Order: sequence, then structure tokens, then C-alpha cells
Amino acid sequence: MSQRSDDVPVFEMRPIGFVRSPHRETADIPKGPGAKHRAEGTLELRPELEDGLADIEGFSHLFVVWVFHESEGYDLVAKVPLDDRRPHGVFSSRSPRRPNPIGLSVVELLHRDGPRLRVRGVDMLDGTPILDIKPYLTSVSPEKLKRGWVGEAEARKRGA
Amino acid sequence: MSQRSDDVPVFEMRPIGFVRSPHRETADIPKGPGAKHRAEGTLELRPELEDGLADIEGFSHLFVVWVFHESEGYDLVAKVPLDDRRPHGVFSSRSPRRPNPIGLSVVELLHRDGPRLRVRGVDMLDGTPILDIKPYLTSVSPEKLKRGWVGEAEARKRGA
Repeated sequence: MSQRSDDVPVFEMRPIGFVRSPHRETADIPKGPGAKHRAEGTLELRPELEDGLADIEGFSHLFVVWVFHESEGYDLVAKVPLDDRRPHGVFSSRSPRRPNPIGLSVVELLHRDGPRLRVRGVDMLDGTPILDIKPYLTSVSPEKLKRGWVGEAEARKRGA
Repeated sequence: MSQRSDDVPVFEMRPIGFVRSPHRETADIPKGPGAKHRAEGTLELRPELEDGLADIEGFSHLFVVWVFHESEGYDLVAKVPLDDRRPHGVFSSRSPRRPNPIGLSVVELLHRDGPRLRVRGVDMLDGTPILDIKPYLTSVSPEKLKRGWVGEAEARKRGA
């Protein structure tokens, strides 16, 4: 599905840089229940944007907003690797087939070398365009967090 | 500053909906040290995307990716309300004047009414375009989280 209304504004986004990742193909990326993203990679900013990284070394974790650049079209409802029993809404999942193909990852900052950030927790493909980097500032406390069908699917797989 | 390289690809994003918020002007939004975002608001999806919300009721918290639609241009380094002592890099801050004017908020889901999600923790202006909604699944544990200049600035203000 890829129909889109024409009565909404369009925002143009340009990559601030690209991800260097050990994941060359989608199949390389751990998915599904209990998937751990421990891979190291590099966020390479366009050199002219390097000054925007001032003081970033003090943060342990960063949000990375990026583009599923190999994804085309979207499904409002679809099955995902974490749950093969029934489909879920796209906004209730991390499916790449989204109305706007935006990905969001939390990575651990290991070190900085000029416009390059070495990070752990890369779940993006090599060459992924980066739209933004932001400091990770506050967590939701575990006792307040409900994880919907994801928590249920993980519990079911653990028990299986 | 708003120069941009023309040698990078452009990605077009269209709002999936808009934020209804009590904040009519930027000045209404709590900012700076210890700012609490407890305001309630509504994420109103385009009606044709409603099916994408299937199963979202089970999640307590959501990521909202949105557009700083009133922001123009960017500063790689600038002073921000949290720290009037010295400027910080744009990727180390939540400044609206970013190369891509993308905002990211974590909100608490209160209830759903069709294509409308009532949420707490709205720090966006009324009318803000929403690009994506994703479930909030995991937190970084507090003992592993370093908050860089933000932690220092908050501690300084508390001690002042």
C-alpha cells in the first residue's frame, strides 16, 4: 500500500550523515523475541556539521533518527518477526514498512573521532541515512512501563 | 544558518496526523532546568491511518516523532534555556533549530478514541505535524545513563 493524501504538507529531510554498520543485509540484523543489538558501528556525520557534536562526549546514550532507505510503501497492519500468531498495527510495532519510513534507535556512545561517533547497539543497515542525533536524557521507570503485545509475545516465546 | 549540501538525497515526509495541545505558543512550553511536561493533549491521526493503531492500547508509553514546523534554519552551536553559561552542539541538545527540524517526545498513553490518542507529557505546540508513532519498549537503566552537560547544568541550578 502506498496511497497518500495530497492535502497534507510535505517536509523535506536531508541526511546529516550515514551509518557504518556490520549489517550488510536485512537478514543480518537480529530480530524477534529477545533480539540483542550489541553490534558496534559508526555514525559518520557530514564534515561540515561536525561542530554540532560539541559536548556530546558527556552522554552515555543517544537517540538516532534515521531512514529505512530500502523500504518502499507501508502496511497499516502486518505480521512482524516477534509475533507470528497475529498481525499488529504499524504504530504498535517497529516494522520498516511505515507511512514515513523513519527508524529510531538508542545507541551507547563509545567514543568520538571528529565527525564520527563510535557506538554500540547498531540495528541499522550499512549506509543508512541519519536524519538526527539527540541526547538520551530520561528513562521511563520499569515499574511504570507496559509493553503491550510485545511483552506478551516475549513471555510466550520464553515459556514455549 | 541554513546552507545545505546538494549532494545528499532528499526524503519527503508527510504528517500522519497533528498534535492537539494546550500550548498555543512556544513561550507556553516549560523549558530549562527541571521542566516537567505533564500537559495532556491528543494525537489526531489522519482517519485513513486509524488501522495502524491496532493493539496500541497495551502500551503505557509511546515515542512521537514530529516536526518543529515553526522553526526555520539551524545553528550548529547555540545557547539553550537549560544552560545560559555556554553554547552546546545542536546534536547534544533538544534545540528546535536543527538541520532536520525533527522533534522526539515520550508520552504516556491515557486512552484511545478511534484515530485519536489522549496522552500525557505533551511538549509540542498545538498543530504540530506528527511523522511517526512507535511503542516505547526498553529503558536505559539509571545507573548506566550519563547525561553530560544537562546533568551538570541541572545540578548547578539546584545548588544555586
